[in-house]
Amino acid sequence: MISTEKTTSASNALSINPPKRLLYGPGPTQVHPRVYEAMAKPIVGHLDPYFFEVSQGVQRMLRDVFGTKNELTLPISATGSGGMETAVSNFVEAGTKVGVLAAGFFADRITEMAKRHGGTIVRLEKPWGEAFDLNEAAEWIRRERPQVVAYVQAETSTGVFTEGKAICSAAHDVDAIVIADCVTSLGAMPVTVDETGIDVAYSCTQKGLSCPPGLSPVTISPRAMDRLKKREQPNRSWYFDLSMIADYLTQSHRYHHTASATMFYALHEGLSLIEEEGLQNRLQRHRRAHEQFVRGIEALGLKMLVAPEHRIWNLNTPCVPDGVDDAKVRAHLLQPYGIEISGGFGPLAGKIFRVGIMGPLATEEGVNHFLTCFGDALRAAGYGR
Amino acid sequence: MISTEKTTSASNALSINPPKRLLYGPGPTQVHPRVYEAMAKPIVGHLDPYFFEVSQGVQRMLRDVFGTKNELTLPISATGSGGMETAVSNFVEAGTKVGVLAAGFFADRITEMAKRHGGTIVRLEKPWGEAFDLNEAAEWIRRERPQVVAYVQAETSTGVFTEGKAICSAAHDVDAIVIADCVTSLGAMPVTVDETGIDVAYSCTQKGLSCPPGLSPVTISPRAMDRLKKREQPNRSWYFDLSMIADYLTQSHRYHHTASATMFYALHEGLSLIEEEGLQNRLQRHRRAHEQFVRGIEALGLKMLVAPEHRIWNLNTPCVPDGVDDAKVRAHLLQPYGIEISGGFGPLAGKIFRVGIMGPLATEEGVNHFLTCFGDALRAAGYGR
Repeated sequence: MISTEKTTSASNALSINPPKRLLYGPGPTQVHPRVYEAMAKPIVGHLDPYFFEVSQGVQRMLRDVFGTKNELTLPISATGSGGMETAVSNFVEAGTKVGVLAAGFFADRITEMAKRHGGTIVRLEKPWGEAFDLNEAAEWIRRERPQVVAYVQAETSTGVFTEGKAICSAAHDVDAIVIADCVTSLGAMPVTVDETGIDVAYSCTQKGLSCPPGLSPVTISPRAMDRLKKREQPNRSWYFDLSMIADYLTQSHRYHHTASATMFYALHEGLSLIEEEGLQNRLQRHRRAHEQFVRGIEALGLKMLVAPEHRIWNLNTPCVPDGVDDAKVRAHLLQPYGIEISGGFGPLAGKIFRVGIMGPLATEEGVNHFLTCFGDALRAAGYGR
Repeated sequence: MISTEKTTSASNALSINPPKRLLYGPGPTQVHPRVYEAMAKPIVGHLDPYFFEVSQGVQRMLRDVFGTKNELTLPISATGSGGMETAVSNFVEAGTKVGVLAAGFFADRITEMAKRHGGTIVRLEKPWGEAFDLNEAAEWIRRERPQVVAYVQAETSTGVFTEGKAICSAAHDVDAIVIADCVTSLGAMPVTVDETGIDVAYSCTQKGLSCPPGLSPVTISPRAMDRLKKREQPNRSWYFDLSMIADYLTQSHRYHHTASATMFYALHEGLSLIEEEGLQNRLQRHRRAHEQFVRGIEALGLKMLVAPEHRIWNLNTPCVPDGVDDAKVRAHLLQPYGIEISGGFGPLAGKIFRVGIMGPLATEEGVNHFLTCFGDALRAAGYGR
């Protein structure tokens, strides 16, 4: 093996020297040390047998966390919003009637993408932070008869989790396929694609899977595959065209794009960590951390935005107390504590905090540490005085 | 700082254990060790002040390697083909007349994307491996009067470099903007966006920049920005919509997607290595390695596909000698030598090898090592017997 180090007159000083952060935001979240170790491993080519071995492992483990037997389950070479565009662009073409259950920022993003891909949109709307009445949603779907129904399983802008069985059942009654945004839930809450009846789900790597951003896992049901084959026009996006991506990663291994070995290594490692812990153990760890978080928040005298039965476990949205400037609280968390969280936006700007308790931080110690610093930051911003 | 290691009952066995490879293919190519080191650094959020500091550095250094003063110069969160779709989707809308100079696989890909985004396509075609007659190309552009002209500066499928000044000049005469595919050239050959007159250029990270795949640097001229503002319909792709991406990475820092700190760290480090070496030194190093490669190939009795004045320095396409099975040669390089190269495809399948001599391998030692192993592999496949 020849040396590859002496080609430049470079000093050995690395240009990257990030500050220490604890990522308690909605994502990206704390990356497990083993994932960093995997990313430092030398890359192989995007058509190398070892790359396809890693890719196969990723696909198998993704099926487990998605809760699906769908053969077509793989990562898209883009971030979570690229997964959203994959879902929308492959199943919406000019004239497709799309029903969107809209109660947050990411449902609005789906709407916007569906319009750009030629869809005719109908929306059932709720104020941000409210959950859908599932009977109402099912009736609306049966009345509107869209060809595609889209909902957000875990709405990151509000903290609401939507249990989708009634939605999927109504959608299937009118022969619609169902797209579910699982960006925030995958790896931290039960996503249960098959049991719920979801046809197309997409997610990201930087939340429940504890990896850096860079890939977007998707899964596609046989029903949706049939629909895809019946498209009249090609996908407007070449990059997100599932038929070609599937051919590259699962069938002929024919070149489509140059997938990143590094990002696949990271995802493989993140999924292996879940497998070693056991998916159910991991989900229950997130549930316990969530319950501990809520108890601590309520002990501080704050309220949660979302009703208990509709809360996302790994993305908590406590309300900003009256008279407190949420930006001051966030600034005090960042300095001195190096803790990143997010605020609300849109109609919830200044009204909520968005706190991710996931991956390596979803432990009793992780929650305690956050609550201690958060209490201090609240007081620094004038709370309780 | 709290511990993030003891959340799982995981063993410490990494799931990733890649074979040793020397990447002498068209890309991905050998990654510099300092880039791996950068990627192992802890991530920060996609809206963290440190992320924008890294992003600013990346933008500044990208301007240098592109040879441009274009303010809008940044990485897209996708691989090189995502950069291609960014270029096409932002500047081609329904009814846009697009002139493509087509003499290889990637020109065909541009054609396909432009069709999907609604363009009306005209093509000037040459057989794969031939260079364009620039007078002919300029006349064709003046006659056809397209609104967008697209050409491939470094055609990875053939090894042909196209000097674009005459093309850009003719295009500007008819008020067209010029898209140039610089996926293979950036960081290894003079790309000279401003001097050439290119309006929209895109590239990748895994070739001349010596990083893993995952981002696609693009640069957009003020002329092209004006054109973008005059679009009648929104980009069909939301993910690749430049206005929103620019707003996120350069202006308001308003959230668009979750850019990967890890991939930005890698690119920042790869670009810093170029800056330390000096861009001109680096380009000349690639030129010298190319010349040494060609001398060695000819000493082995092989011919190069492309005429000397049209060759890409960092992507060489020697012809497969008569009677030799190129797959056997490649198999013998992979085992025992761990060397990856590529073959030809399409009309050049079985007719050429595609050998990348770039980044840390573009040294006298790197070329010698390759030539020794390649000579041996040729003999193992029956050459010279």
